[in-house]
Amino acid sequence: MMASTKYNLDPGLDLILERVIDVPRELVWKAWTTPEYVTKWFTPAPWQTVDCKIDLRPGGLFYTVMRSPEGEDYPNIGCFLEVVENEKLVWTDALQEGYRPADKVGFMTAFLLLEPHGSGTKYTAIAIHPTEAGRKQHEEMGFHEGWGTALDQLVAFVKTLEA
Amino acid sequence: MMASTKYNLDPGLDLILERVIDVPRELVWKAWTTPEYVTKWFTPAPWQTVDCKIDLRPGGLFYTVMRSPEGEDYPNIGCFLEVVENEKLVWTDALQEGYRPADKVGFMTAFLLLEPHGSGTKYTAIAIHPTEAGRKQHEEMGFHEGWGTALDQLVAFVKTLEA
Repeated sequence: MMASTKYNLDPGLDLILERVIDVPRELVWKAWTTPEYVTKWFTPAPWQTVDCKIDLRPGGLFYTVMRSPEGEDYPNIGCFLEVVENEKLVWTDALQEGYRPADKVGFMTAFLLLEPHGSGTKYTAIAIHPTEAGRKQHEEMGFHEGWGTALDQLVAFVKTLEA
Repeated sequence: MMASTKYNLDPGLDLILERVIDVPRELVWKAWTTPEYVTKWFTPAPWQTVDCKIDLRPGGLFYTVMRSPEGEDYPNIGCFLEVVENEKLVWTDALQEGYRPADKVGFMTAFLLLEPHGSGTKYTAIAIHPTEAGRKQHEEMGFHEGWGTALDQLVAFVKTLEA
C-alpha cells in the first residue's frame, strides 16, 4: 500500500516526498537518529545544522539549530511521538520535551517511513499541517526542493559511512 | 517512587491530583476509555458530558463535548499519545486525530496513571501546560476541585458497575 493511502493524506493540508534511494534503511535510520550525523546532511547547503540533540523515545526531545548563510540561528524544538527502529519516526513541534504543549501553534507533524527496496530503501517523508495556510507556507518555503536536497545530502553522507 | 518525582514536574507549569480510591484499576480504566461510561462521570455536575468519541491508540482521537448548566456546548478535541491498558493514558489538545497539530496553542497534555493499591487504586492525574499563565488559568478554573469532583463521580459510577 502506498504511504499516501495508508496515511489517508489530505492534499489541502499535507505534503509528501517519496523516493527510492540506493542505501540500506539501517544506515538511513542512523543518519536520522545520530546527532553528529544529522549535522552533516540535514539542511540544504549553504544552510547548516549547527546543533542537534536527540532523545530517541516517545516524549523525547528532537532539537536542531539551523544557521542561515547570513549566520542567523533558527532553533527548532520538537518532540518524538513514535520511534520504530529502521522503520518509522514521528515527531512534532506542537509539543516540547515530555509532551509539553509548545507556546505557539505547531507548524507540523512529520512522519519518516523507511521500507526495504532491494538493497536500497523506499523513503517516504510526510508533513501534516494544521491549516491549508500552513501547508502552503511550507510548500513555498520549498518543501519538495528542501527535503529533496537534504535527502541527496543524506545519501551522499551515508555512502561515506559505507565506504 | 512518587509520580511527581518520576515525571520531574515543574510546580510553575504543572498540576497534579493524587488519591487512593477503593475501586480496582481495571474498572477505572474502563470508566476512562469507554465513551458511554465517560459521559456518566467526566464533568462535575451540573455540567454534563453529552458526547464522547475514543479511538484508543497513539494518534487516535479523544473527543468530548461538555455542556454548561446554561446549555452551551464546549467541544474538546484531543489526541492520545500513550495507551498502556490499566496503567497509563496520555493525551493532548495540542494535537488532533492522527497527530495533526491543532490550529491553536495547546492548553495541556494530561497523564492518567493507575497503580494497584490493595484492592483499590492509586490514582494520579497530571496536567502539564505550556506556560505559567496556562497553569494558573487551569488552577483558577478549578483543577483540583473539578478533577476531584469528577473522580468522586467516577468512583460512584464504577461502584454501580461492580454491584
